[in-house]
Amino acid sequence: MASKKQRIGVLTSGGDAPGLNAVIRAVVKSASGLGWEVIGIHDGFEGLLGTKSYRVLTNADVQGLLPRGGTILRTTNKGHFGPRRSDELSEADPYVRAVKAIEEMGLRALITIGGEGTQRIALELHKLGAPVIGVPKTIDNDLAGTDRTFGFDTALQVATDAIDRLHTTAASHNRVMVLEVMGRHTGWIALHAGLAGGADVILIPEIPFSIERVAEKVMARDQQGSSFSIIVVAEGARPRGGSEMYIAEGRLGGIGHWVGEQLEKLTAKEVRVVVLGHLQRGGSPSPYDRLLSTRYGAAAVQAAARGIYGEMVALRGQDIVTVPLAEACGHLNRVRPHSDLVLCARSLGIAFGDEL
Amino acid sequence: MASKKQRIGVLTSGGDAPGLNAVIRAVVKSASGLGWEVIGIHDGFEGLLGTKSYRVLTNADVQGLLPRGGTILRTTNKGHFGPRRSDELSEADPYVRAVKAIEEMGLRALITIGGEGTQRIALELHKLGAPVIGVPKTIDNDLAGTDRTFGFDTALQVATDAIDRLHTTAASHNRVMVLEVMGRHTGWIALHAGLAGGADVILIPEIPFSIERVAEKVMARDQQGSSFSIIVVAEGARPRGGSEMYIAEGRLGGIGHWVGEQLEKLTAKEVRVVVLGHLQRGGSPSPYDRLLSTRYGAAAVQAAARGIYGEMVALRGQDIVTVPLAEACGHLNRVRPHSDLVLCARSLGIAFGDEL
Amino acid sequence: MASKKQRIGVLTSGGDAPGLNAVIRAVVKSASGLGWEVIGIHDGFEGLLGTKSYRVLTNADVQGLLPRGGTILRTTNKGHFGPRRSDELSEADPYVRAVKAIEEMGLRALITIGGEGTQRIALELHKLGAPVIGVPKTIDNDLAGTDRTFGFDTALQVATDAIDRLHTTAASHNRVMVLEVMGRHTGWIALHAGLAGGADVILIPEIPFSIERVAEKVMARDQQGSSFSIIVVAEGARPRGGSEMYIAEGRLGGIGHWVGEQLEKLTAKEVRVVVLGHLQRGGSPSPYDRLLSTRYGAAAVQAAARGIYGEMVALRGQDIVTVPLAEACGHLNRVRPHSDLVLCARSLGIAFGDEL
Amino acid sequence: MASKKQRIGVLTSGGDAPGLNAVIRAVVKSASGLGWEVIGIHDGFEGLLGTKSYRVLTNADVQGLLPRGGTILRTTNKGHFGPRRSDELSEADPYVRAVKAIEEMGLRALITIGGEGTQRIALELHKLGAPVIGVPKTIDNDLAGTDRTFGFDTALQVATDAIDRLHTTAASHNRVMVLEVMGRHTGWIALHAGLAGGADVILIPEIPFSIERVAEKVMARDQQGSSFSIIVVAEGARPRGGSEMYIAEGRLGGIGHWVGEQLEKLTAKEVRVVVLGHLQRGGSPSPYDRLLSTRYGAAAVQAAARGIYGEMVALRGQDIVTVPLAEACGHLNRVRPHSDLVLCARSLGIAFGDEL
Repeated sequence: MASKKQRIGVLTSGGDAPGLNAVIRAVVKSASGLGWEVIGIHDGFEGLLGTKSYRVLTNADVQGLLPRGGTILRTTNKGHFGPRRSDELSEADPYVRAVKAIEEMGLRALITIGGEGTQRIALELHKLGAPVIGVPKTIDNDLAGTDRTFGFDTALQVATDAIDRLHTTAASHNRVMVLEVMGRHTGWIALHAGLAGGADVILIPEIPFSIERVAEKVMARDQQGSSFSIIVVAEGARPRGGSEMYIAEGRLGGIGHWVGEQLEKLTAKEVRVVVLGHLQRGGSPSPYDRLLSTRYGAAAVQAAARGIYGEMVALRGQDIVTVPLAEACGHLNRVRPHSDLVLCARSLGIAFGDEL
Repeated sequence: MASKKQRIGVLTSGGDAPGLNAVIRAVVKSASGLGWEVIGIHDGFEGLLGTKSYRVLTNADVQGLLPRGGTILRTTNKGHFGPRRSDELSEADPYVRAVKAIEEMGLRALITIGGEGTQRIALELHKLGAPVIGVPKTIDNDLAGTDRTFGFDTALQVATDAIDRLHTTAASHNRVMVLEVMGRHTGWIALHAGLAGGADVILIPEIPFSIERVAEKVMARDQQGSSFSIIVVAEGARPRGGSEMYIAEGRLGGIGHWVGEQLEKLTAKEVRVVVLGHLQRGGSPSPYDRLLSTRYGAAAVQAAARGIYGEMVALRGQDIVTVPLAEACGHLNRVRPHSDLVLCARSLGIAFGDEL
Repeated sequence: MASKKQRIGVLTSGGDAPGLNAVIRAVVKSASGLGWEVIGIHDGFEGLLGTKSYRVLTNADVQGLLPRGGTILRTTNKGHFGPRRSDELSEADPYVRAVKAIEEMGLRALITIGGEGTQRIALELHKLGAPVIGVPKTIDNDLAGTDRTFGFDTALQVATDAIDRLHTTAASHNRVMVLEVMGRHTGWIALHAGLAGGADVILIPEIPFSIERVAEKVMARDQQGSSFSIIVVAEGARPRGGSEMYIAEGRLGGIGHWVGEQLEKLTAKEVRVVVLGHLQRGGSPSPYDRLLSTRYGAAAVQAAARGIYGEMVALRGQDIVTVPLAEACGHLNRVRPHSDLVLCARSLGIAFGDEL
Repeated sequence: MASKKQRIGVLTSGGDAPGLNAVIRAVVKSASGLGWEVIGIHDGFEGLLGTKSYRVLTNADVQGLLPRGGTILRTTNKGHFGPRRSDELSEADPYVRAVKAIEEMGLRALITIGGEGTQRIALELHKLGAPVIGVPKTIDNDLAGTDRTFGFDTALQVATDAIDRLHTTAASHNRVMVLEVMGRHTGWIALHAGLAGGADVILIPEIPFSIERVAEKVMARDQQGSSFSIIVVAEGARPRGGSEMYIAEGRLGGIGHWVGEQLEKLTAKEVRVVVLGHLQRGGSPSPYDRLLSTRYGAAAVQAAARGIYGEMVALRGQDIVTVPLAEACGHLNRVRPHSDLVLCARSLGIAFGDEL
C-alpha cells in the first residue's frame, strides 16, 4: 500500500522583510530532503481564508531565491482576524475556518512567518488544534521570545549606510542632519544604527526626550569645534510631555521633520531631514539575515518532523531553539533604558535627550 | 636670486557632491609635481571674502582623500554675490574685492569647483582680470558645457539601489511605490535611474505629466498581471497645467507625496512614497566619479600651467577639454523630450505621463 | 490573409559579463512593443549549430532580469568556427550551416551579443547574407568601434573596491599589496581602477615595465614616509625583455605573483598578492552598465526595424550609433601610452615601471 | 594638591581586522568621558619594547574613525615573545621588559587588542603583575572564550558577496566555481558564507573530505539538471589521509587550486578557482562589527575603571562580559562536526565531502 506523501504549508504575513524568501527556500529544501511536499500559500492568511490561492513549491521553485528580498508568496497586512472573543466554534469565525482549511489541505504542519500579530493568530489556531509552527520576522527586532529577528540586520545596514552618507554632507556644510528610521514602538534600529554610524544624538520611544536637551547637545558640540551633528530618530520617539508640543495626528512629516523644525528654531543652524522609510525593508538580505532565515526555516521543518507544534523557532545566544508561541505574544521586546547598550552609548558621549 | 614659488588656490562652492575631495587631491598632487604650492580656501567664497580662512595643502593633507565624500575645505550655498549690476569698480562690490583678494594672496590661478552659480561668479571675476579656472560639479548633471559632472554617477547609484529595494517590497505587497529623486530643474537622475532600475513611470521637469495618464498606466499593468508599479519622480516634475492642481508652496511633502496621494485616490491601490533627499549627495564617490574628478583636478592644474584662464575643464566624449566659462553659464543642460534616451525608455514601455 | 508575426533571434557568446541579461530584456521589451516575437538561443552559437536549443522569450520571461548578472541564455567560449578559409559554400562549413539555421528559424534578424571573436563570426555570417546585428560586450573594454562596452564599469567597481580594501591592510602593516586584475591584452581595468583607487604603480600590457623601476618607486615612497604601496597589475602586463625573466607558460601564479616575489627580493618588504579573477565578471551590473546594456538592446531592435544589418550598435560620446561590424574586428582598442589618461596618472605621481 | 591624570594604553597586534579603529575610538571616547588620558602604542608590542613609539590619543584624533578599516596604530605579526620558559625574572626577558615599560609609562591599564597569540602574551604579562585587559580580535572567529570576534561579520560579507558573484558566472557557463576563503585552523567563514551564499559543497578543517565524494556531488547535481556547482573551501581544509594526495608545502596555489585541479580531472567539467585572500581583511567594518568593536572598547575602559585586570572582554549571547584571559588561550574555538549549523547545512543538501 502506497503511503501518502507528507505535506506542510508555509505562508508569509505582515510587512515584508529581507530574508522571507530565504526562510521559504530553507523550508522547501529541508522538507524535500525528508521526502515531504511543501504548499506555498499566497498573500498570507488571505490565501488560506479568502482567495484559496496556493501552489506546490519544489526545489526548482526556490533556486536562486536566497539573495532575493521580498517574498515570492506575497504578503498582506490585511486583517481577517480580530481578537478572539468567544469560545464558540462558529462557522463564521475566521479562526475556525482557518483550522478547517488547514485540515482540508492535509497539512501536517503550517509554518507561519511573521511578527507579533501573525504569531498571535498562530497561537489561537493552535489552541483550536492546528499544527502551527511560528517563524519570527520583524524589521524592528521588537518581537519577544527570540534574541533576534531576521530583516533587522539588513535594515541596520541600510540605516548605517545612510548615516555614513549624511556625515559627509553634514561635515561639509556645518549642518545638523536628522535621520528618521523605523521603530514605531521600539528603538532597536535607531540605537544600533546610531552606535554603528557614530550619531551624536539618538531618540527612541523608550526614552522620552526634551527637544531643549537635544538643542543643547548640538550647541555644545559647536562650542567644542564640531560644527555639525547627526541625530537619529526612531519614528515612534516622542518628546516628554509631548501632547502639547507634538501631535502626531495630522502631521504629514512625522517626528523627524518635527525635530528638524524645532532644532532650526532653537539652534539657528541649518538642519536637513531624511526619512528612510521603506528603503529599510527591501533589497538583498545581509549574510547574517540569510543565515538566520535559513536556520529558522530548517528548524521549523525539524520541529514539524518531531511533532512540535504551537511553538516558535527562536535564537537564544548562538542556538536555535523553540519557545511557546505565547512567549512571543502580548508584549514587545523593548530597549531597556538602563541596558548595557544604552549605557555604552552614553559613555561614548551620545545624548538621548533626557540628560539633566 | 631665489625665484618665488608658484601658488594656486582652490575652493569648493555650492552643495556638496561626491568627488569634491578627489578634485582637491588631484589639484594638490599635480601642482606638487610641478613644484607649486596650493592654498585651500575654506567655505567657498566665504573664505576668500568673509572669514579670510585658508591654509596650505600638501600631499600629506590629501592622503586617503580619494574615497571620501564631502569636502575638507567645506562649502556654503551662502551668496555674497548678486548679479553684477554696474561697470563701476567700487570697493564695496564683492567681485572687485574678490579679485583683490586673489591678487593679495599671490595666486597664479584660482580653481573654482562648483555648479552654474559658481561658474557665473567665476566668469565675472575673470572679466575683471582674475585668473580663474572652473571645475564643473553638480549632482543633477544639469551644467551646460560638459557632457558630465562628477557626483552624478554616485547619485545615480544611490537612486538605482533605492529602486531595487523598493521593487522587492512593491512586488511582495502589490503596491505602488513612488520614489522622489533630486532634479529641481532637470530630470537626469530620474531618467537614468528609472532606466537602470526598471521603473514603470518616470516623471521629469522637461515633460509635464497628467496624473490621470500615470494612473492609467498603473491600472493597465494591473490588468496585465503586474500588480505593482514603480514610479520615479524628479523633485522638479510638475503636472500639466499644474497651478490649479498642485501648489508647491506651502506643501511639506513635495511632488512625490502629491503624486502618491493622487494615485491612491485614482487607483484605489496602496501607495508608498520615499523621498531620497540628501542621501544622494553623500558617501564615497563611485569609481567613475573618482576618475572624472581626478581628471578634472589634474586638467585644471594643466590649464594653469599653460596660462589658460576664464575656461572650465569639461568632458567631451572620452576627452577632457576646456571650454569658455560662458558656455556653462546662463542656461542649463536639460533632457530633450525627443532625445534617444527618452525614446529608448518609451520603446521599453516606460510611461512619462504625457501619453495620448 | 493573416500576416506572419515578425521574429528575431538573440544569443550571448564568449565570457559572461554583467549586463547580458539587461540587453536580453531590452531586446524582448522593445521587440514586443513592435509586436515581434523573440527567440532566445541557448549557449551561444552552440544552440544554433549544435544542440538546436532555443525558446520563445516573452515579457514575463524577462521580468526582474535587469539587476541580475550572468545570462539566462547561457554562453560558451567553445569554438565552432575557425577562420573562414575558402569561398566555397560547403555544407560542412559551420558558417554556411549557421546561415541556413537562421533562415530556417525564420529570423528577420539575429542579434549577437559578444566580444571581438563573436563579432568576427557575425561579420562572416553577414557576408554570407545573414541579417546579423552585433552588440558589443567585454569586461576588458578592448573592443574596437565603440567608446565603451558594458560589463566594464561593473568590473571597475569590483577592482576599485578591492583596492580600497587592500589600502587599509597595506597601511596598517606597512606592506606592499599587489592586485592582479583582468586585461589579457589591454590595461583598461588596471588603469581606470588604479586611478580610481589611488594606486601607486600601474602595470599594463601596453607599457612594458622594469621590475627595478617598480622597486625604486616603492623604496622612494618609503623614504618619503609612506611605508606602504599599492600596485595594480593587468594580467597581460609583462616585464621589458621579459622572456628571460618571466616565462608565463608553466607558471601557476601569473604575473601578479611574479611581481610580488620579485618585489620581496628587491625591497625586503612584506608583499601580499591578490588575484581578483572571476569576481570581476559576476554580480549585479552597475547602473551605468544597466543603462548602456538597455540602450544597446533597444538600439539593436531599432536597427532590425530599419533593416540595418551587418552593423554593431556602439557608444560614441553620449550617443548610441551603429558601425560596420568590420570596425570591431581584427584589432583591439588599446590604451595609448601617451594618452591623456596615462599622462594624468603620471602627473599625479603614479608610476608605470618605465620611468627613466 | 593636583591629582595626577589617569592614563591607559592601547595597542593592536597580529593581522589587521575591520573594527580595530572602532575599538580604539571607543576606548578614547570612553576614557575621555572619565577624564583619563589614552596612550596609543604603535606597531603592537614593537612600540612598547622596540621602537618605544607611541602618542597621546584625543577625541579629535579618533573623529571619523568608526567606518575606517585597518588600525591607525598599525600592527605587526612580528614576534618579540617566545613561550615563557623560566620563572626567572631576567632583564633580557621580553615579558619582564614589557611589564617594566608599562610601569614606566605610568599606565593604569594596557588594553591589548588581538587574537590568541596576543592574549597569550597578555596573560603572561598579567602573571607578572601588569594590569592588562584583552579585547578579542580575529577574522576567523576562532578565538575561544567569546561567542564572536569583530572582523568576522565583515569577512563574511566579503565572502558571501564573492559567492553571489561566482553564482552568476557558474550558472551562465555551466561551470564549477571553487572559492577559497580564510580559515587556517577553523571553518567558520567557509561554513557561514557557504550557508549565506547558497554553496553546494563546504570544505572545512574540522571535517576531512574525500575529493571523490565532492566530485560525486557535482555529478549528482548535473544529473538533476543543475549543471553548475559552487564549492567553498577554507584555506585549512584537507583531504582525508591527505598526506599522499596533497602536500601543502611547496604548493603555490593552496588547497583551492588543488581542489580545482582534482575536480577537473574527476568530473571533466570546467572549473575556475578564486582565492579571496586579503580582501577579507580590509575595508569598512560592517554595522555589526562596528557595534561589537564599540562595545568591546567601552567595556575594556569600564573594566579598567573597576580594576578588573587579567580578563578579556567577550560576547556571551547578547551581553558583553569579561572572562579570564586563560579561557582564550591554549585552544581554539572550532566548528563542531555535529553542531546545529553543520546539521542545518546537511539538511539543506549541502555536502561536506565526508558523505557515505
